[in-house]
Amino acid sequence: MSLSPHSLPSRPSFRTARRADIPAIVAMLIDDPIAAARESLGGEDYRDYEAAFAAIDADPRNELILVEVDGEVAGTMQLTFIPGLSRRGAERLQIEAVRVAAPYRNRGIGRTMMEWAVERAGDRGCALVQLTSDKARSDAHRFYTGLGFTASHEGFKLRLS
Amino acid sequence: MSLSPHSLPSRPSFRTARRADIPAIVAMLIDDPIAAARESLGGEDYRDYEAAFAAIDADPRNELILVEVDGEVAGTMQLTFIPGLSRRGAERLQIEAVRVAAPYRNRGIGRTMMEWAVERAGDRGCALVQLTSDKARSDAHRFYTGLGFTASHEGFKLRLS
Repeated sequence: MSLSPHSLPSRPSFRTARRADIPAIVAMLIDDPIAAARESLGGEDYRDYEAAFAAIDADPRNELILVEVDGEVAGTMQLTFIPGLSRRGAERLQIEAVRVAAPYRNRGIGRTMMEWAVERAGDRGCALVQLTSDKARSDAHRFYTGLGFTASHEGFKLRLS
Repeated sequence: MSLSPHSLPSRPSFRTARRADIPAIVAMLIDDPIAAARESLGGEDYRDYEAAFAAIDADPRNELILVEVDGEVAGTMQLTFIPGLSRRGAERLQIEAVRVAAPYRNRGIGRTMMEWAVERAGDRGCALVQLTSDKARSDAHRFYTGLGFTASHEGFKLRLS
């Protein structure tokens, strides 16, 4: 593929999500074959999401990240820094809710997001970065392994009614 | 096995860990073939652990739990309540660092611990309980599946130096 100079892809930029970003983030969470089955967006009622956003925003160990390319929403992920006694008291970074917006997929943005998150974890002194990925996402598994992650664990989930 | 009345096993009791419990908890974390490889207990220096304990203790979304049987330390686990926009803004409970002390294994204490944690998650309105378990722990996997958990995810870890 050859790109003319004006169409060279811009680098993604990263910032903490704001309240006004909630609809765009929810749209990305839902635009996913696995997640769509469990989300039931009830029209324009974002009250539940706004309460969750406020909880994340006020928590110094949780960060909801918005990724932009040329000012457009391109991706999201949530970072949770978990303190623990294991590994001599080191924090671990857990990454949840990783999504790249449909028009921006297959352009290396997911890789840039993970590299950014791992660098954040290193700067903070975390001993470990962890995430789980649905076993149905076989492409994602090659992606994470390619980034140096090891699929060393089984990820167990129990849904509560 | 028949038990005389005075040897009937007592029910485990649960409480939030205190600073004085750190050595007992660290001993349980280390007394494990998988974890032992990554922990290097440097004599009696618990400073790193104490800083991590203080961080957990001050965080309303992290709880370090101590399990006792007849006043003796029998187990530990850490609960982390993670807010998120997924699942209509529901919290999820993540369980980490689950250990049963050697003399208390194979007595159903692990099951009681998980049931207690799942009940806590339900009381708090969590939509999901999640944990990862090293693939080398095949016994643990049957245990979690038997409790209703689904091994639906790959658990990826990246160690930072």
